Amino acid sequence: MAAEPVLEPSFHRTLIKSILAGDAAVDLVGRKVVVGGWVKTGREQGKGTFAFLELNDGSCLANLQVLVDAAVYSLSELVPTGTCVLVEGELKKPPEGAKQRIELRVEKVIEVGPVDAKYPLPKTKLTLENLREVVHLRARTNTISAVGRIRDELAYATHTFFRKNGFRYVHTPIITTSDCEGAGEMFQVTTLFSLAEKVEKELKLNPPPSESEVEAAKLLVKEKGEKVSQLKSSKASKEEIGASVSELTKAKENLSRLEERFKLKPGIPRKDDGGIAFDSDFFKRQAFLTVSGQLQVETYACALGNVYTFGPTFRAENSHTSRHLAEFWMVEPEMAFANLQDDMNYAESFVQFLCQWLLDHCLEDMEFMVKHYDKTAIERLKLVASTPFERISYTKAVQLLENVTDKKFENKVEWGIDLASEHERYLTEVIFKKPVIVYNYPKGIKAFYMRLNDDGKTVAAMDVLVPKVGELIGGSQREERLENLKQRILDSGLPLEPYEWYLDLRRYGTVKHSGFGLGFERMILFATGLDNIRDVIPFPRYPGKADL
Amino acid sequence: MAAEPVLEPSFHRTLIKSILAGDAAVDLVGRKVVVGGWVKTGREQGKGTFAFLELNDGSCLANLQVLVDAAVYSLSELVPTGTCVLVEGELKKPPEGAKQRIELRVEKVIEVGPVDAKYPLPKTKLTLENLREVVHLRARTNTISAVGRIRDELAYATHTFFRKNGFRYVHTPIITTSDCEGAGEMFQVTTLFSLAEKVEKELKLNPPPSESEVEAAKLLVKEKGEKVSQLKSSKASKEEIGASVSELTKAKENLSRLEERFKLKPGIPRKDDGGIAFDSDFFKRQAFLTVSGQLQVETYACALGNVYTFGPTFRAENSHTSRHLAEFWMVEPEMAFANLQDDMNYAESFVQFLCQWLLDHCLEDMEFMVKHYDKTAIERLKLVASTPFERISYTKAVQLLENVTDKKFENKVEWGIDLASEHERYLTEVIFKKPVIVYNYPKGIKAFYMRLNDDGKTVAAMDVLVPKVGELIGGSQREERLENLKQRILDSGLPLEPYEWYLDLRRYGTVKHSGFGLGFERMILFATGLDNIRDVIPFPRYPGKADL
Repeated sequence: MAAEPVLEPSFHRTLIKSILAGDAAVDLVGRKVVVGGWVKTGREQGKGTFAFLELNDGSCLANLQVLVDAAVYSLSELVPTGTCVLVEGELKKPPEGAKQRIELRVEKVIEVGPVDAKYPLPKTKLTLENLREVVHLRARTNTISAVGRIRDELAYATHTFFRKNGFRYVHTPIITTSDCEGAGEMFQVTTLFSLAEKVEKELKLNPPPSESEVEAAKLLVKEKGEKVSQLKSSKASKEEIGASVSELTKAKENLSRLEERFKLKPGIPRKDDGGIAFDSDFFKRQAFLTVSGQLQVETYACALGNVYTFGPTFRAENSHTSRHLAEFWMVEPEMAFANLQDDMNYAESFVQFLCQWLLDHCLEDMEFMVKHYDKTAIERLKLVASTPFERISYTKAVQLLENVTDKKFENKVEWGIDLASEHERYLTEVIFKKPVIVYNYPKGIKAFYMRLNDDGKTVAAMDVLVPKVGELIGGSQREERLENLKQRILDSGLPLEPYEWYLDLRRYGTVKHSGFGLGFERMILFATGLDNIRDVIPFPRYPGKADL
Repeated sequence: MAAEPVLEPSFHRTLIKSILAGDAAVDLVGRKVVVGGWVKTGREQGKGTFAFLELNDGSCLANLQVLVDAAVYSLSELVPTGTCVLVEGELKKPPEGAKQRIELRVEKVIEVGPVDAKYPLPKTKLTLENLREVVHLRARTNTISAVGRIRDELAYATHTFFRKNGFRYVHTPIITTSDCEGAGEMFQVTTLFSLAEKVEKELKLNPPPSESEVEAAKLLVKEKGEKVSQLKSSKASKEEIGASVSELTKAKENLSRLEERFKLKPGIPRKDDGGIAFDSDFFKRQAFLTVSGQLQVETYACALGNVYTFGPTFRAENSHTSRHLAEFWMVEPEMAFANLQDDMNYAESFVQFLCQWLLDHCLEDMEFMVKHYDKTAIERLKLVASTPFERISYTKAVQLLENVTDKKFENKVEWGIDLASEHERYLTEVIFKKPVIVYNYPKGIKAFYMRLNDDGKTVAAMDVLVPKVGELIGGSQREERLENLKQRILDSGLPLEPYEWYLDLRRYGTVKHSGFGLGFERMILFATGLDNIRDVIPFPRYPGKADL
């Protein structure tokens, strides 16, 4: 047997972040390290005797300055923007007056990944819109990589916050046969198209029997049946009858096989009434992509107490705005033994925690956002992290908005309307200049599962409004009373049957409970000051677009 | 205006876990608390003068013993199993000799959620199989709630491990137009059924025009056109010509509207050749549920360096085993500047970290598993957490298995085969009695993206095998060389075009990189010793089943 391939030793590279972070830069002088990254800019100097590379490895925004002598490697292969290099060298203090605090003097070039001349990310800045056409490469730009790190920090902060508060993370299903909102466009999940394709292929290879073949087979069954009766009535021998019965069985089997294949039709399987036969689909019924994990996570809240789900949710709306995606992430906590007051308390401290987290863990990337996209981004985080949120009832909010004289709203304000974005932003940006929680909304504009207040006209719902994006969180105390909930489902024009499991939670040890949902991409827009939701998720999905 | 509803004050309940944990029990004696939960067992005592309730709130496995006097509340309403109560009282030291270290003496019953007599979770134990029929209630059982907490701990441990090691969490898409494996059954995501439904509804309300209506409209356009020519050639006035042109325009608009509606057909939209018109679908092409986030997360590894994705993945396989789900969770790290050796190092330390985490954070639930399901569960965690994994090449593994004399395998062992579960378990359970990493597999049985070794017959793949479940992790160093990768795609019988974006990662600053995938439910099976994967995910999906 030939010699086996030898394993290459581990690379043991050092992250640039750990070299440049805090005071590390000073302590690490003299240390040998292996560093890898992509060249942001490279330039030959000293008449081609050495080159400076600005190397970025994505671990942080800043680049490491890397110095390579011509004696070490062919410089022209290293300097093109986008080249990947893995190098070994010694960390040095740059000459007096340099802006870097530390640089790497290369002793060995371990690997080089050259860049084709057609590289679609030139040094000149592409617009965010252009970058959406190269989602597989755009994370190499400063903006999208900063967003990636901010997104990661917010995800980790989310898990940290809920853990600290005794919540358990529950994986609610993506494929669902329930519809949380009782409305809203859902994507359907199916294997019927591939099934149809398979049948069509099969029918091409093995054409189905003709009608006359089936008729012939029927006739044969009839004949064989008659033969058996005849033999029986003529008291033939057991052997003769047995042989005849076995021939009849064979003929019957053949007929049923032919009849089954005769029914095979190309195309999507249909029921007798022409409707699509969803009982032939994978789950033997229609199944959809979830629009919210709330109803399902409630089953866990009614068992584990404090829980949350954090995952992708879907809307098949033909929406082309900068605020909507077909696939987006939601954080949805749900708390047993919690009323609307508890709900607002958790929502407020969660948002404050996220803001403080970015200030504590992501300042370099936030400063980049301030410099390039939104001067007030860090100020906004500080404001929200440190200021108690205003809390006003919907009725009060409407009164305030009705009294506004310095602005004409496009949508008329009156009790009973769903507040539009312009109203929400006016409340938080102009009137209160801080986050506002509006609670006790008219029942007519809210979902069936929200708890009816004693006034009979409002429900225990609450929205958290913040400057820049408006509604960041929507939540409510859930209706825990069985009869009220049934009535609200029926009043919403929905059937009870699909919600029987949800009603069971009220039949068996019902509990006052509350929860809310935070749109994760909205939180990133709020934090970064970016305008388009398509730029804050790695792989945006919207009508006509699902790259990769 | 009527008075607004007043907000109920916050409940401020205390988690039972924090009362029973560690030494808290002793310190808290004398403290007033509000506690909520569900009655596991309740019994009236002292001739109905008081009742003991074993109260569980899901924050931990253990129940809090709660004592209620008949003077405080009607005892018969509190004792049925499944009743929900929120109570206020004082924590006391029970009488000498009691097995509890602390109990709650109730002063006030704040809320009661009664339980209907049909409660499907009686005191007698239901089998795990029976519980799958009540997924919305089963988290109230000891087993499923323990699994829920173990699952949460493993998820948190996953994020913690990767953060400690400088990885960023990337949300790869659920809806995808790429196919990671180039095979495997995928679910399709579509809005065509609802579109067809809408068209059918619309056509019922507004029947499409008949052919003669369309013909009449065509004729009108012709007439109006002739009229315009006539007026022009007879040099009619501007006004006359203008009026005539405007009539022509109207007639044309009417025709195009009729023609469009004439084309409307009930049913799924079809192309001219009879194939389904997927360009009418939401994404203007076929889209699927992801089978793995690997290819997409590679784009981020080639930008941010060390990244991972952790989310749901899908297989539309008609598989009814205890090891397969249609929807399951995967952890998929991907590291730039990392070879197979680095890959194995990360995989080993990740698995060890998870095992140690459960020992440190989840011992009560693990002890429950040991008592009820698998005596060796904790031993296994300890073994894996503390023992370096064996690492052997595939070739060596095959040699070892060929020499086995004490066992007859169902599947014959020879170089080139894909190791079956029986082989994998023999290696880890019998030969090495610890986790084993097998690396350098024959290229013929592995995916196109795995790096070809210098021997031309093996690829830099590795699988981590553990006792009890066999393969827990599959990973590889990725093929970073453009020409090799193209060839491997073509050799796998796949077209290049859909992978152009993936090839771009090799065209522009290619980097040696590696990654692996850990089946999250397999890890939970491994940890708990449970046998069926349907019991370790909150809402299992498999053929014919997608409850809730």
